[in-house]
Amino acid sequence: MAKIAVVAGDGIGTEVVAQALKVLRVILPDVETTDYDLGAARYHRTGEVLPDSVLEELRGHDAILLGAVGDPSVPPGVLERGLLLKLRFDFDQYVNLRPSRLWPGTTSPLAGVKPGEIDLVVVREGTEGLYVGAGGNLHPGTPAEVATEESLNTRHGVERVIRDAFARAAKRERRKVTLVHKTNVLTHAGGLWARTFNAVKAEFPDIETEYQHVDAAAMFLVSNPQRYDVVVTDNLFGDILTDIAAAVTGGIGLAASGSINPERAFPSMFEPVHGSAPDIAGKGIADPSAAVLSTALLLDHLGNPDAAAKVTAAVGAEVAARTPGSALSTEAIGDRLAAAVA
Amino acid sequence: MAKIAVVAGDGIGTEVVAQALKVLRVILPDVETTDYDLGAARYHRTGEVLPDSVLEELRGHDAILLGAVGDPSVPPGVLERGLLLKLRFDFDQYVNLRPSRLWPGTTSPLAGVKPGEIDLVVVREGTEGLYVGAGGNLHPGTPAEVATEESLNTRHGVERVIRDAFARAAKRERRKVTLVHKTNVLTHAGGLWARTFNAVKAEFPDIETEYQHVDAAAMFLVSNPQRYDVVVTDNLFGDILTDIAAAVTGGIGLAASGSINPERAFPSMFEPVHGSAPDIAGKGIADPSAAVLSTALLLDHLGNPDAAAKVTAAVGAEVAARTPGSALSTEAIGDRLAAAVA
Ligand SMILES: CC(C)[C@H](C(=O)O)[C@@H](O)C(=O)O
Ligand SMILES: CC(C)[C@H](C(=O)O)[C@@H](O)C(=O)O
Repeated sequence: MAKIAVVAGDGIGTEVVAQALKVLRVILPDVETTDYDLGAARYHRTGEVLPDSVLEELRGHDAILLGAVGDPSVPPGVLERGLLLKLRFDFDQYVNLRPSRLWPGTTSPLAGVKPGEIDLVVVREGTEGLYVGAGGNLHPGTPAEVATEESLNTRHGVERVIRDAFARAAKRERRKVTLVHKTNVLTHAGGLWARTFNAVKAEFPDIETEYQHVDAAAMFLVSNPQRYDVVVTDNLFGDILTDIAAAVTGGIGLAASGSINPERAFPSMFEPVHGSAPDIAGKGIADPSAAVLSTALLLDHLGNPDAAAKVTAAVGAEVAARTPGSALSTEAIGDRLAAAVA
Repeated sequence: MAKIAVVAGDGIGTEVVAQALKVLRVILPDVETTDYDLGAARYHRTGEVLPDSVLEELRGHDAILLGAVGDPSVPPGVLERGLLLKLRFDFDQYVNLRPSRLWPGTTSPLAGVKPGEIDLVVVREGTEGLYVGAGGNLHPGTPAEVATEESLNTRHGVERVIRDAFARAAKRERRKVTLVHKTNVLTHAGGLWARTFNAVKAEFPDIETEYQHVDAAAMFLVSNPQRYDVVVTDNLFGDILTDIAAAVTGGIGLAASGSINPERAFPSMFEPVHGSAPDIAGKGIADPSAAVLSTALLLDHLGNPDAAAKVTAAVGAEVAARTPGSALSTEAIGDRLAAAVA
């Protein structure tokens, strides 16, 4: 019986998570969920971001389903560093998994790119790089101020995420892994990534590989996204590239993500890539599809690949069946998806 | 009489620079040029990247016109760190200027975006951030390896490039500056950038401003590039965003750049964004337009805005007059442009 911690969060987070849970309960009837009140609303009410006691409770779950946290009223970094990144780091969620597909029924902003043509997954490192928070400000607020950010990368951290990317590629049809970094400028970290990539690649002789600088990859994601299968990259590059991948597949409405500890030593976290969208919150018009697709990633991670495939297929079919111009409500989409997986 | 150092470089670099010089000599007949043999070919022949004596000679020029340097046979970083970045840093070229326009006659890969609709310029910081090369490898080649890269940012460096961006925006029609950073994760450097941006913005009350995280900006450059006028950002983000901007305006065929020291205390350097393209080198089919547009940036920097405008207009007209399917040779395009500015 899977134990899921639910962090619905702020804005449309609560709305989309309600639908994701509706679908999850149909496909996994004995799932046990516990709600955790975290995010901007709680921060404003109590000043708390992630109390230690809550962190410990979360640790006892098999996975976390998160809607969205954040609000413009919270200073930048408070919830990101204090909640989202804290969970990624404390729970060693080193595989940040972000699939991008151009679904039938959706339109790419790219001319002439047809549904089905884009089907890639970015395996973004989740626990290292510039995200470690190693930096400071010397002489802050003066003309002499110096601000630093340090990117920390270990062979341990780089190797495990690259190996994960190869293992995922081995299960896909095209069996190709693209390493993205900036080895020509970031020679120290880039050297580690490139050497480690070459070492792991030797273990997977039947996987096709390529290397691209991050600027070139950003360009190719626009000019030829069809070329990618599995992309493995560092934390910051992955942040940027996955948003480009989301953009060329029609936006973040269908972008799912998982912050995964593949060994299940800690709970993994699944969330739509979109934010709390205060502008449309409370209107019942948010698309819950990305949250539902994130739930499919959760199911797959917990060892239910068939259930995951069923949920993913249901979203695909629902999106394909949409009538342009007549938008369904958040709840109506959730109902359709729940019925489809029943 | 302007003294220009010419680094034609490798591959198509030599071909496009020949045409750029042809145009430059028509519009600035008394220009004095000196060729410098630098790049992959020289590195292979002599082992030298940038001898001190050459660096000193370059220093005596008003500007540098560069074609492209590099070849897959050179290890990553050698020419980048040893030549391109060395010049940017030693000559304090802190404004890395990259305009992107969707020219009449060109096609964006974005559906429904029409020529004239995209017209933005990225002011990328050129002397700080992750490009400073402050990093290392501890226990290299062992399972215990740690690789670091440090981003160094000073109030001095951030303020001058932000002020430059505002000054450029003040001369443009839309008068808008977008700051791009990642303040929610890179809180130390992001804090410095955001505070400095707000301070400088107070000096330009009639300029519209906005802030975006780099991942959001990468997405908007695909979904709505029309929204940008002047974008100011750090060295690495600028590297990535300018390639996206090039992609949505039809590729790097027309992407020009300047690495500029606005005070002219040191020579500034102008180069097409494209590389040496070994695959098409020697065939006479490379498009010299980006090199010619870079020459226009050079003219503008040296105080010849009218000549710059004339060269830019000539490229615009030539591109608009192209017949789809019948590509002109490198030389034929150069001839047309030279005739147009005569
Ligand atoms: C909110 C922020 C910390 C986060 C990140 O930068 O990783 C977000 O952009 C994402 O991609 O999940
Ligand atoms: C070649 C490389 C050092 C350079 C950079 O990263 O700045 C290039 O990508 C550019 O954008 O000019």
